[in-house]
Amino acid sequence: MTAADVEAYLHEHIPQSISMGVRVASLDERGVRLTAPLSPNINHRGTVFGGSAAAVAMLAGWALVHAHLAGRPGVRLVIRRQQMEFDAPIDGDFDAVCEDPGDEGWAQFERGLEHMGKGRVQLRVRLNRGAADLATFDGVYVAVSA
Amino acid sequence: MTAADVEAYLHEHIPQSISMGVRVASLDERGVRLTAPLSPNINHRGTVFGGSAAAVAMLAGWALVHAHLAGRPGVRLVIRRQQMEFDAPIDGDFDAVCEDPGDEGWAQFERGLEHMGKGRVQLRVRLNRGAADLATFDGVYVAVSA
Repeated sequence: MTAADVEAYLHEHIPQSISMGVRVASLDERGVRLTAPLSPNINHRGTVFGGSAAAVAMLAGWALVHAHLAGRPGVRLVIRRQQMEFDAPIDGDFDAVCEDPGDEGWAQFERGLEHMGKGRVQLRVRLNRGAADLATFDGVYVAVSA
Repeated sequence: MTAADVEAYLHEHIPQSISMGVRVASLDERGVRLTAPLSPNINHRGTVFGGSAAAVAMLAGWALVHAHLAGRPGVRLVIRRQQMEFDAPIDGDFDAVCEDPGDEGWAQFERGLEHMGKGRVQLRVRLNRGAADLATFDGVYVAVSA
């Protein structure tokens, strides 16, 4: 799957991804990078609304697992839990970067999916603006075989 | 502050609250209850997008502290961290209920704000549909004196 494929899927199936102006900027073996503009996600202080920050971060992790699964039939993907630290206000357009969990991360995910019908992967997403990390999200995603 | 006051504030200052269709249904000494419809918040499975669920939950806690502060001058309110468990899909319109932390919770918040210029309160928000709790959010909100 390409970045454009994942973006089209998000925009078609999750309308809030359009409301928030989310784009999939890159998707490769290192991970996925989403972008979102400040304007539709602004809050009372002129910075990014924490709910938008959490939602974009959640989509970044989701996009990475979705791309890994690449339309595998009969598998549904959900988020089980997440936590997030807000270290500094996000005062402009921002990125959500989810690093690929690597061969071992995916191997464990695949073993669970194959042997127990349930694969689990924990992903970290960093929200940044330029070089600075401004918030950190950790999410546990679960894929379940039908 | 009334439920209508808080709703007007959210809609004016946080445009995503409009995109998500968030309403402030009640605000009283027991806490605050927000409502949100499924339709603008739908995901690829026909249930509520986890990012919307997190954002609405975050707004519920935020609304409660905002109402407590009631426009106190020179105090800004931010979320510091949050975590969320998704126990079951939210398959329709839903509520986000944040219980009032009670006199002791607010007294501690006020002591911090008065003596250290920083008040902190941890709030639990339950997302439900009818009687069933479907997700639980815990957020730490911080009010800072200018």
